[in-house]
Amino acid sequence: MADQEKRDLVSIEDLSGAEILELFHHADEFRANLRAWSDLCRGAIMATLFFEPSTRTRLSFESSMLRLGGGVISAADEKNTSRSKGESLADTVRVVGGGYADILVVRHPEDGAARVAAQYARVPVVNGGDGAHEHPNKTLCDLYTLWKEKGRLEGLEVVLCGDLRYSRTIHSFCYALARFGANIVTMPYPGFELPDYVLHRLRRDYGVQAAAASVADLPGIAGSSNAAAYLTSSKPHQLALFTNLTNIEVNRIDAIYMTRAQRERHTGESTANYPRLSRTTLDAAAARDARVMHPLPRVDEIDYDVDDDPRSVYFRQAELGVPMRMALMAFLLGKIQLRAARPAFASVTRGIEAGAGLRCRNERCITNNEGVRYLAPDFRLREAEVPPVLSCAYCEREIEARFVGHGQSRVFHRYNAPEARRIKPENRVYFESEAQAQAAGFQPNAG
Amino acid sequence: MADQEKRDLVSIEDLSGAEILELFHHADEFRANLRAWSDLCRGAIMATLFFEPSTRTRLSFESSMLRLGGGVISAADEKNTSRSKGESLADTVRVVGGGYADILVVRHPEDGAARVAAQYARVPVVNGGDGAHEHPNKTLCDLYTLWKEKGRLEGLEVVLCGDLRYSRTIHSFCYALARFGANIVTMPYPGFELPDYVLHRLRRDYGVQAAAASVADLPGIAGSSNAAAYLTSSKPHQLALFTNLTNIEVNRIDAIYMTRAQRERHTGESTANYPRLSRTTLDAAAARDARVMHPLPRVDEIDYDVDDDPRSVYFRQAELGVPMRMALMAFLLGKIQLRAARPAFASVTRGIEAGAGLRCRNERCITNNEGVRYLAPDFRLREAEVPPVLSCAYCEREIEARFVGHGQSRVFHRYNAPEARRIKPENRVYFESEAQAQAAGFQPNAG
Amino acid sequence: MADQEKRDLVSIEDLSGAEILELFHHADEFRANLRAWSDLCRGAIMATLFFEPSTRTRLSFESSMLRLGGGVISAADEKNTSRSKGESLADTVRVVGGGYADILVVRHPEDGAARVAAQYARVPVVNGGDGAHEHPNKTLCDLYTLWKEKGRLEGLEVVLCGDLRYSRTIHSFCYALARFGANIVTMPYPGFELPDYVLHRLRRDYGVQAAAASVADLPGIAGSSNAAAYLTSSKPHQLALFTNLTNIEVNRIDAIYMTRAQRERHTGESTANYPRLSRTTLDAAAARDARVMHPLPRVDEIDYDVDDDPRSVYFRQAELGVPMRMALMAFLLGKIQLRAARPAFASVTRGIEAGAGLRCRNERCITNNEGVRYLAPDFRLREAEVPPVLSCAYCEREIEARFVGHGQSRVFHRYNAPEARRIKPENRVYFESEAQAQAAGFQPNAG
Repeated sequence: MADQEKRDLVSIEDLSGAEILELFHHADEFRANLRAWSDLCRGAIMATLFFEPSTRTRLSFESSMLRLGGGVISAADEKNTSRSKGESLADTVRVVGGGYADILVVRHPEDGAARVAAQYARVPVVNGGDGAHEHPNKTLCDLYTLWKEKGRLEGLEVVLCGDLRYSRTIHSFCYALARFGANIVTMPYPGFELPDYVLHRLRRDYGVQAAAASVADLPGIAGSSNAAAYLTSSKPHQLALFTNLTNIEVNRIDAIYMTRAQRERHTGESTANYPRLSRTTLDAAAARDARVMHPLPRVDEIDYDVDDDPRSVYFRQAELGVPMRMALMAFLLGKIQLRAARPAFASVTRGIEAGAGLRCRNERCITNNEGVRYLAPDFRLREAEVPPVLSCAYCEREIEARFVGHGQSRVFHRYNAPEARRIKPENRVYFESEAQAQAAGFQPNAG
Repeated sequence: MADQEKRDLVSIEDLSGAEILELFHHADEFRANLRAWSDLCRGAIMATLFFEPSTRTRLSFESSMLRLGGGVISAADEKNTSRSKGESLADTVRVVGGGYADILVVRHPEDGAARVAAQYARVPVVNGGDGAHEHPNKTLCDLYTLWKEKGRLEGLEVVLCGDLRYSRTIHSFCYALARFGANIVTMPYPGFELPDYVLHRLRRDYGVQAAAASVADLPGIAGSSNAAAYLTSSKPHQLALFTNLTNIEVNRIDAIYMTRAQRERHTGESTANYPRLSRTTLDAAAARDARVMHPLPRVDEIDYDVDDDPRSVYFRQAELGVPMRMALMAFLLGKIQLRAARPAFASVTRGIEAGAGLRCRNERCITNNEGVRYLAPDFRLREAEVPPVLSCAYCEREIEARFVGHGQSRVFHRYNAPEARRIKPENRVYFESEAQAQAAGFQPNAG
Repeated sequence: MADQEKRDLVSIEDLSGAEILELFHHADEFRANLRAWSDLCRGAIMATLFFEPSTRTRLSFESSMLRLGGGVISAADEKNTSRSKGESLADTVRVVGGGYADILVVRHPEDGAARVAAQYARVPVVNGGDGAHEHPNKTLCDLYTLWKEKGRLEGLEVVLCGDLRYSRTIHSFCYALARFGANIVTMPYPGFELPDYVLHRLRRDYGVQAAAASVADLPGIAGSSNAAAYLTSSKPHQLALFTNLTNIEVNRIDAIYMTRAQRERHTGESTANYPRLSRTTLDAAAARDARVMHPLPRVDEIDYDVDDDPRSVYFRQAELGVPMRMALMAFLLGKIQLRAARPAFASVTRGIEAGAGLRCRNERCITNNEGVRYLAPDFRLREAEVPPVLSCAYCEREIEARFVGHGQSRVFHRYNAPEARRIKPENRVYFESEAQAQAAGFQPNAG
């Protein structure tokens, strides 16, 4: 790794589509004989730093690393140890990533925490789930399962069901499905719809269009959701199929992805009549070739007597996680090389530095929580105009900046004023409001 | 393991007596040089899933697996992780046993949990203690210690002292001692006698007969127990010795097995004047050649100044657990083969299927707790008549079925009615009462 | 290890100065390529037994052992497992050190616990921190950092800042600095001064003299402490430099060792205006060549913007812990041999046995807590007269014994009575007061 920049997996966007497909082939190789790779990463150590408890994810990573011949050190419930003495995540990853371990897997309750870890650690960081933000390694495993089951990702019809609001797994999965050209049918439990910022990002980054959806009757699921939507990429081949996007009828489903209610992130919402997938659901014609997926742990949202149905692949999904994670770890540790090109980040300007006066509006964002002590606000420009949209460099929550100042002259303008447009990108400082600009010591345009 | 049915260690009955003795010899080999086996299980992974905390058992298994060259993943306090999200044991073992690990060690607070784990996991499961049910790997280690100390098991006089009611270690140990022809002297703390269902099973499965016992004075122990009993197998060679079983005088003791009060399973019982083994106890003539055993952890029931007595073998007992568990793990992982025959289960009919209306009467049984969501009642017929006795397939608690129905005609009869006897075994449905039969939709015999 | 007495690291005194320097050179070798040593300790198992949570120390040891090719078993929060069933530390280490593991690392909240562990375990024990007593492996790592940064230890000027009262790291560090001839400037937060017993030991064992110190202005630090003291060894070469020890002016600082407030050991003390090291502090002339050290975790006592200063070595300190601990473990496991002589303990008489009537006055000492059940008081004579000073063999707290009895005649005298002086050392029994002597059944001198 000496001469290369380290790679992290903070967001599923950190891997290009071609890299992901190449990793799938490596996972297949690992899977062919799980016990045959115990020399590949010998001498390397992985640390699992879990600030939220999770058996499944932690054990899957640990198993993967052991099967690669590496060692594992684990802080399974960090909330109760150094954190109780007040240590910051930045310090923890600098210590553990400084000689203790050669790769870190971090789970943390605050949105954006994984980016902080990647920024401060000098070894690769894998996001094992950060707040309600992303869970990209899980997404890799889910995509891998779908790809193995269906032989492709493009054009698949994937139903997402249940708590789409707080499930970071769902958010990461949506971005990836859109990227690979799959269509998404959201069937949220009322009040737990996909957040607007996820929809915005799907639209902007992948040209996803939304329409109302009429889903062929899926007993136990369809009835409990009153807001089914169809999200489809506006890639040419898709547009040809859907000339009228007002109400799509979905008659064939390739996968139903059920999620449990993420009660640990709720604030008192009731989940009475939460959707429940049963044998009857699978009797529906549209579900004939569907695969039933679930990130696990399941509570009651899939009946136990569905387990034996060959279309139920949730345990297989967990199983495929081991070879998929072996491929990921081996790649990040530099033990396998990918031929595919890395993702291009060219369109994203680098972070807007501190002093801009902007503050992330996501109350769960790490910049508004433990990061207050040491993180400067950092934003990326996503859309330059109408009005400018910036996203928090940590949690990716977006804000609209209606005012733009000049870093030297300390004068600010409305974003669409001609003076604003003349400010060079490197001098631009963004504000949400006049008050915010003035609080940061900027003057309104004298004109 | 490809072509073989997997083996589990849920109950000590899952190993034949000859297999156990053969494992002892393997343990001796491992023990000769603990560090010489680090290639035997290389590439294999053991998961310890502990839903109740236990350092000793967990560390002993982990050490054994590491000494065999395998890897370890560990969920040391599952109560607080996925379980808090509501996941069932069945799901957990399907996930962890599906690619994560090649063998599972499970400790769980509910009786019968280990059988559930073995049923759902596709890899071998070792019962690391399930509720107040069994702790068979501990029993293996205890038997191994006794066998090494005394050179045999048959005919030994073993005193069991203290909390015989809640100690699952004691229950497993009793069955094994009876099987190997050792005699048991129970000296329970008042109110903590061996449960009736353990006594019944000892009698039925091993022909054990009970008699009052007069134990030669054992200061600190004998005085605190007012219900000493002598349990001896009715094998021919034993019957010859005990023609009159009204009151056995025990003058030579081979081992005193002390137990702590299992306070975590008590419901408010006082343990004042709990027995306490001291130097004075060991001064008794009957204890001259006795070995003092204890499953550990000890609280106050053995004085610290007994530790240095050469007859105190409780730390040796812990030490022998490592090679014994190495032998067990290597066997279950298919790395050592046993020549001895497997136990014969021919006499036990297969489970009586759901719909029988029977419900396990053990409130701690997993079928009455977390299994309610997914487990059907399952019973095995232990005695066919006078009246029929069935035992829960999970926790082994027994019930009497005074009524027998016909699965097709849905008519039921008293167990000893001629019509009942004519029902073929495969059509029999058992009930505890008429009300239960009627609640299950069966009609009383019209006659 | 067969023929050798086992070595432990309970106190930093358990290693001679020459051994420590030799270990530094071994650490350098390990550090040159951390991943090249995975065969050195293959087959050996380390157990971490942590009765107080600590991620950093535990993970550092575990990483070190894995890098040496050994295995790790871990009880990361023992407080909640066997301990809750009432097991003593002595029993735990006898079990875990009896076949489970080949070396133990123990952290425990009670002063002196590490000595108990070393006494009862038959494998080497490393003190991972025992109450407010010592943390010698941390000290080794700190000394190693200082030695690498400055090329020597003798004559360095080391500022210790913050909570010097409860930080066991500081106590161990002080003894070691004094031993190697470094000078210590204490800048305690008011109320958190170095304890008297530490000062006494520094004076007696290393001839350290204390003087008031005027420290060149260190903004953020100097102001918050009103009791700066200069501790210097009275070795000849030092005395020559400080002929007048009334008030030393310190104009050059080699290292500033900051500590957090050890809140978990406080009893309600306020820490408002706790010292805080900032860029301004480092701007002071005296700090020009200083290294900033910290045992971590940091709370707020070092500003985050100091992290990038090349003089900040606290993360490097953590990093150097891995090779240093590799050297320590390899040494204690007998895998590397040291040529240097072991420390001489000749001047310390062996423990004064039970029956002396003495009781350690340190309420946090293990002899006054869990050890009450099984530990006899044990004291070592540190100074024979004026009056005799004895230190607890476990926590090293000192007491003055103003009365001396004769073990056979059961008569006691004032320590400076001629009769007292005539009692042979092996017959001496010490008491703090007449009442204590009489309570132990001794009679006052009839004369």
